[in-house]
Amino acid sequence: MIKLHNIMQAHQRLKPYVRRAPLVYSEALSALTGAKVWLKLECRQPTGSFKIRGALNKLMSLDSEALARGVVTASAGNHGLGVAYAATALGLTNVTVFVPQTAPAAKIAKLERFPITLRLAGQTYDEAHQAAEAYVQETEATYIPAYDDPIVIAGAGTCGFEIISDLPDTDAIIVPIGGGGLVSGIGVAVKRMSPGCQIYGVQPTASPAAKLSFEQNLPLETYDHQPTIADGLAGGFGAIPFYIARTLIDDIFLSTEAELRQTVFTLVEQEQLVVEASGAIAIAPLLAAAHPFQGKTVVCVLTGANIDTALLADILSGPNGS
Amino acid sequence: MIKLHNIMQAHQRLKPYVRRAPLVYSEALSALTGAKVWLKLECRQPTGSFKIRGALNKLMSLDSEALARGVVTASAGNHGLGVAYAATALGLTNVTVFVPQTAPAAKIAKLERFPITLRLAGQTYDEAHQAAEAYVQETEATYIPAYDDPIVIAGAGTCGFEIISDLPDTDAIIVPIGGGGLVSGIGVAVKRMSPGCQIYGVQPTASPAAKLSFEQNLPLETYDHQPTIADGLAGGFGAIPFYIARTLIDDIFLSTEAELRQTVFTLVEQEQLVVEASGAIAIAPLLAAAHPFQGKTVVCVLTGANIDTALLADILSGPNGS
Repeated sequence: MIKLHNIMQAHQRLKPYVRRAPLVYSEALSALTGAKVWLKLECRQPTGSFKIRGALNKLMSLDSEALARGVVTASAGNHGLGVAYAATALGLTNVTVFVPQTAPAAKIAKLERFPITLRLAGQTYDEAHQAAEAYVQETEATYIPAYDDPIVIAGAGTCGFEIISDLPDTDAIIVPIGGGGLVSGIGVAVKRMSPGCQIYGVQPTASPAAKLSFEQNLPLETYDHQPTIADGLAGGFGAIPFYIARTLIDDIFLSTEAELRQTVFTLVEQEQLVVEASGAIAIAPLLAAAHPFQGKTVVCVLTGANIDTALLADILSGPNGS
Repeated sequence: MIKLHNIMQAHQRLKPYVRRAPLVYSEALSALTGAKVWLKLECRQPTGSFKIRGALNKLMSLDSEALARGVVTASAGNHGLGVAYAATALGLTNVTVFVPQTAPAAKIAKLERFPITLRLAGQTYDEAHQAAEAYVQETEATYIPAYDDPIVIAGAGTCGFEIISDLPDTDAIIVPIGGGGLVSGIGVAVKRMSPGCQIYGVQPTASPAAKLSFEQNLPLETYDHQPTIADGLAGGFGAIPFYIARTLIDDIFLSTEAELRQTVFTLVEQEQLVVEASGAIAIAPLLAAAHPFQGKTVVCVLTGANIDTALLADILSGPNGS
């Protein structure tokens, strides 16, 4: 469905707009875990997440007629910011982002910095999404999906291309899984470039849709999850990611809420990095008492930085605090 | 005392060991302040501070006989880490760092990761420093100063060289001032490369040694400061920095403890950056109600990341919290 050359093409065209997110060795986490731990800092991208990669690649694939009809998405989170950033970087003028009326003010304020049309619609994300779909029917605008799209996935895969280009000896990459766009894109790039490199996913125990999808051999596109601080990973696993990734992922780990809090705390304490729980989860498998990465060169993809300040304060004041 | 070519020479030899710290545009701070705000992320250097620049330059200036006799310093903070990192990067084996017995365990743990000799001596920094001086008398080791040394200052100045190389149109640079090594090094580089660019310092109101030194036209090398969370900036202003910087600094701002807390909070909330108070202070002048930087291109040097986790939790939970 997508091949390495699609990702390399994306890498070339995204270059002017995406940072080559730093890949840094963590002395502290290596000492703590016995693995050689590298961190891929997607949390330092513009907008604070990897989502700009897929959004840019998708927008750059549209022709001028489609761009004139406009683009639209529904998200108050990292995907919405990614589309807003990408559209602004490309100079697009007909861009609409739907967010639920209940979205936190901090998230709305971040979106309002971009020259896009922001539409508040509905009480829930699903209702905002329905409003965006209605807008597509009315206007023939193009909907920009967050993950369930081969071109979005190829864009996300550029992260994997960078990792193996920078560190060819990587033994394993640990990737947070939500809808599955990032892990499937990284999977395609990495298994072609370095077939011996293993790809591991991590999900919150509260929302293990990908793990269950692979166990049942059927993508759980919607999933009635439990509460989790890793809100970016909560919910279903995409059908396209499922069919791409099912032969590429070596295993999926689960992380409890307590473990998630520990990952956020540890990254602030040891590496002075602000990482949201959905991104910090990548180090969770390494912090477990027994893990299979002793002596291995492991890259953890820290996918995003946008954590609520009050939640961060609570985690830093918590039982792991000093 | 030092010239631009000393700094360019330092830039060349430091390159393999120092990150070119990212210089990033802050949409959020620009929107908040009306200036075009760029952040120089020295907080993302190895060891989490700019101090590796001066330490590396000093160690690389020593001949093999001096290195065989050994090097020593006294610091449990960023300078100690800088010397430990630099010595390790250069493969030096005879390296001793004195720290007071009262140093926080977290700081000692960070130093212990390096293959250096760590010596606990005395109850205060001054007593640890005296022990290091006694060690110099005994062993003829070379003491590595934190700031009061032209070669250390030339190393710190490489930060200014990078800023003007990356952003030649910079109107002003705001630099935290403690002992004065960084501001004097940046001053030399910048005023030669871009004479119209202004150099501003910031100090805690609790420890305004540089400001008072310039007012009195005499370096206050020791200063009996009030308590401040910007511990890295507390105390005296160096004599060598004084004579270098007095014609190069356009003005010095002061920042109260409440303002310091606000800077740390704002960098986490708006830019998801962990910055210690001594580094975050660089944005304080821009957060003031009236400031002279409207519409100007301003670079704030965020000098370090090593904030105590409990203090960060306290700041994030405080009156600015959500």
